[in-house]
Amino acid sequence: MSRVKISIIGAGSAVFSLRLVSDLCKTRGLHGSEVTLMDIDENRLKAVQILATKFASEMKTELTFKSTTDLQEAIKGSDFVINTALVGGHAFLDRMRAIGEKHGYFRGIDSQEFNMVSDYYTLTNWNQLSYFLQIARTMEELSPDAWLLQAANPVFEGTTLIRRNSKIKMIGFCHGHYDVFEVAETLGLEREKIDWQVAGVNHGIWMNRFRYEGRDAYPILDRYIAEKGAEPFRPVSPFKIQMSPASLEMYGFYGIMPIGDTVRNSSWKYHYDQETLERWYGSPWGSPDSEPGWQWYKDQLGQITQATMGLAQAIAYYPQASLEMLVTEGAKSLSGDFTGEAMKLYDPSQMSGEQHIPFIDAIVNNNASRFVVNTLNEGTISGIDDDVAVEVTAVVDSQGIHIEDVAPRLPDRVIDWYLRPRIMRMEWALEAFMKKDPGLIVEILMRDPRTTSYEQARGVVEEIFGAW
Amino acid sequence: MSRVKISIIGAGSAVFSLRLVSDLCKTRGLHGSEVTLMDIDENRLKAVQILATKFASEMKTELTFKSTTDLQEAIKGSDFVINTALVGGHAFLDRMRAIGEKHGYFRGIDSQEFNMVSDYYTLTNWNQLSYFLQIARTMEELSPDAWLLQAANPVFEGTTLIRRNSKIKMIGFCHGHYDVFEVAETLGLEREKIDWQVAGVNHGIWMNRFRYEGRDAYPILDRYIAEKGAEPFRPVSPFKIQMSPASLEMYGFYGIMPIGDTVRNSSWKYHYDQETLERWYGSPWGSPDSEPGWQWYKDQLGQITQATMGLAQAIAYYPQASLEMLVTEGAKSLSGDFTGEAMKLYDPSQMSGEQHIPFIDAIVNNNASRFVVNTLNEGTISGIDDDVAVEVTAVVDSQGIHIEDVAPRLPDRVIDWYLRPRIMRMEWALEAFMKKDPGLIVEILMRDPRTTSYEQARGVVEEIFGAW
Ligand SMILES: NC(=O)c1ccc[n+]([C@@H]2O[C@H](COP(=O)([O-])OP(=O)(O)OC[C@H]3O[C@@H](n4cnc5c(N)ncnc54)[C@H](O)[C@@H]3O)[C@@H](O)[C@H]2O)c1
Ligand SMILES: NC(=O)c1ccc[n+]([C@@H]2O[C@H](COP(=O)([O-])OP(=O)(O)OC[C@H]3O[C@@H](n4cnc5c(N)ncnc54)[C@H](O)[C@@H]3O)[C@@H](O)[C@H]2O)c1
Repeated sequence: MSRVKISIIGAGSAVFSLRLVSDLCKTRGLHGSEVTLMDIDENRLKAVQILATKFASEMKTELTFKSTTDLQEAIKGSDFVINTALVGGHAFLDRMRAIGEKHGYFRGIDSQEFNMVSDYYTLTNWNQLSYFLQIARTMEELSPDAWLLQAANPVFEGTTLIRRNSKIKMIGFCHGHYDVFEVAETLGLEREKIDWQVAGVNHGIWMNRFRYEGRDAYPILDRYIAEKGAEPFRPVSPFKIQMSPASLEMYGFYGIMPIGDTVRNSSWKYHYDQETLERWYGSPWGSPDSEPGWQWYKDQLGQITQATMGLAQAIAYYPQASLEMLVTEGAKSLSGDFTGEAMKLYDPSQMSGEQHIPFIDAIVNNNASRFVVNTLNEGTISGIDDDVAVEVTAVVDSQGIHIEDVAPRLPDRVIDWYLRPRIMRMEWALEAFMKKDPGLIVEILMRDPRTTSYEQARGVVEEIFGAW
Repeated sequence: MSRVKISIIGAGSAVFSLRLVSDLCKTRGLHGSEVTLMDIDENRLKAVQILATKFASEMKTELTFKSTTDLQEAIKGSDFVINTALVGGHAFLDRMRAIGEKHGYFRGIDSQEFNMVSDYYTLTNWNQLSYFLQIARTMEELSPDAWLLQAANPVFEGTTLIRRNSKIKMIGFCHGHYDVFEVAETLGLEREKIDWQVAGVNHGIWMNRFRYEGRDAYPILDRYIAEKGAEPFRPVSPFKIQMSPASLEMYGFYGIMPIGDTVRNSSWKYHYDQETLERWYGSPWGSPDSEPGWQWYKDQLGQITQATMGLAQAIAYYPQASLEMLVTEGAKSLSGDFTGEAMKLYDPSQMSGEQHIPFIDAIVNNNASRFVVNTLNEGTISGIDDDVAVEVTAVVDSQGIHIEDVAPRLPDRVIDWYLRPRIMRMEWALEAFMKKDPGLIVEILMRDPRTTSYEQARGVVEEIFGAW
């Protein structure tokens, strides 16, 4: 049993924090660890502190929790720092989107080709990127041997940025790759029997390997598409789009399946307007990144935040109440996805699916396991610069991260028509941020299908950044 | 004196052919050579044969001329093959442009970011690209040791395509880099005293070195811009845009001067419509690639073709007439640029500026000289793939082509924001051509600022290529 010190930055994100705490409770090898919850929002922080403590005690595990609003205090002496903060919050994202729409940029200027995810801002949220660097710098000083585990978006830009500018150990995580199993299940394949691999960049990953019982499983997918591909697509939530027409068409064009958020991160072809979105991602939402789709998501987040605050208050008043009972009953009013998530928290046989705690367990206790990680390319995917963060599979143990060979290699179609253009935009966005040059954002917008004049692009950028 | 066999494919392009013939006449070391004129247009061919023969005899040089409409016959046994053919002619380009405009693509779908030159079609003129390969294949068979000198556009795509797919010796030429001297002259600098270098890709070259009397000359340009930059720009022809506001603004953004056709090959920022074009490239034309600018150019070409046909007829009837007198008198009705060109033909102290004949002289007679050549990168410009054709300076002698080091290196701004996006489009266009896949052209148009729906892009491509 190893006692480590884990800090969670942006711990007020209650769902995320409780999932990590739940995972920790189920990971024997990390019992006795100390968790520092850090957030700038004291109310949220207090609530998470109460809930986490209660949760751990109900799960009969020895974990200690501290809270702080001070970044330095949180980081000092940590072994692992998990960053899940969203600087400016959803309110900032909404404000930027509204300014963009006012100037004729449907869904805001941060929505770009292959980068449509609505809380993945690469152009306007410089504060978020600055915070990434601030955390890295603080770690260099106060916990130079610690690992930074990045959950906050944009993971692609963030991992590239931090790794290029800091010597700390750092890795980015996302859970989008689990949609590999959504593909398998749709085809009636057993999860355990598929041999899969994904590769690409965060939110731009592709299932380069898909085998079942020793044989290529893509023909099974092809048969499914031939038989069912034309049937109307009816998603049960805006996020259930792994098998949407957009996804299947991308498969047709690129030759292998886009996985997870990659399906959202498509071209304007599927995103021009609400009608187009619904055609490709199903009605009524038309993807999570449509107006109704994103509203749905924010409503759920809002309900969860309210519910957690309420729960924390209840526990504060009645410390002997059963949190388990309150959570599992309370979650029933949420949508299917979220109810399932809440149930999982208490199910000892299930981890949350977040990779952070198993990663820590692998590093600390040599409990080797397979992950999908974001780390510098350094030759893993050929045709991509070495110093660009890629998302690939790796086995992790106490020796470190062992990246798997990408086999079979990604098709040229994916490299030339998807990854390279996406990487180019990452480079542009990072340069604009590093130089703090809004003029570069204008230049990016000159290449945007929504721009019809220089004045339009200049106008939106001036309203966001002020004159320069 | 070396007698070599030179074939000119597309020799009906009278101006170009006469310039080569004139250069040949002025190059002692190549006297006695045999020139095979090849074209599919018999009338043009006949006219050029008459004029070339007459010209050489007036210049008192021993050159023999043959004509053929057969590619194999032209290539067989050649030492040098110069390709200047435009398959489909300007009529084809106009037709494609008209279809594009009908579907809402101002100036046609081949006009793309950093690729606005109106006879530089990379998407729709597959016949032109096929012909490039056909010439290379024919040479492999019938003159495997010969050099192919490529003048026909697109030189960038063409050089890359041929070099990737054939083992013949091949090089691409363009004369756009002479605008380096336009910069120098505007600043009152003596041509001979400037130390310059350009690098990039064809029609995307940048003056990485600009020194005068041993000192950096960019500060002189900066002073000029500070003093005169705001004065109204009045071009004397649509092509005189090296010092246009567009060019100076590009200099501001990229850090070094774009040279020659690079100034035309800019972003949509300068190309949205006629008004925008005139603002950046001057009235009344607004660049050679506006509707009036290109009309001006085609009118000139038409007049020249007519004039040459007339001249040839005159010489056929009155073989003893003086061609020199007819040419120099006749050219006076043309615009300034073209009059100067015609005068040059007979001026023994001036070469045409086309690099083909001096290149042959360098290779054959070890008459070493400096050129701007298009050849595979192979490490010359870092940050660009090895198998991409770059346009760089080289000294050529009988040992071959000695590429100069690019010093100072190109700024990252040029690589990341101009060359890489341009190269990406080249790759896309070549893949569409190689696979004969119009669907890829649709995909390219999905990234085009003029596209507002998938149906629009699909519609224009179907009208051009038929259904697929
Ligand atoms: N990698 C993944 O798998 C994944 C999945 C979902 C969301 N995300 C990302 O996680 C982040 C959080 O999303 P969310 O919806 O929970 O947002 P949220 O706004 O609900 O929560 C983020 C928390 O960060 C806190 N915060 C803001 N500024 C801070 C600062 N300077 N220091 C510390 N804390 C600060 C906020 O108070 C809030 O509690 C986003 O970047 C989102 O894109 C990642
Ligand atoms: N590299 C440079 O510096 C430079 C400069 C100007 C023009 N160009 C290019 O040169 C080419 C010619 O331009 P132009 O304005 O003279 O065109 P043009 O149409 O006037 O002349 C081209 C000639 O090619 C001939 N031709 C067409 N199909 C042929 C075939 N299959 N075989 C042989 N000949 C054929 C035509 O009959 C015509 O005589 C274009 O590609 C243009 O873009 C290059």
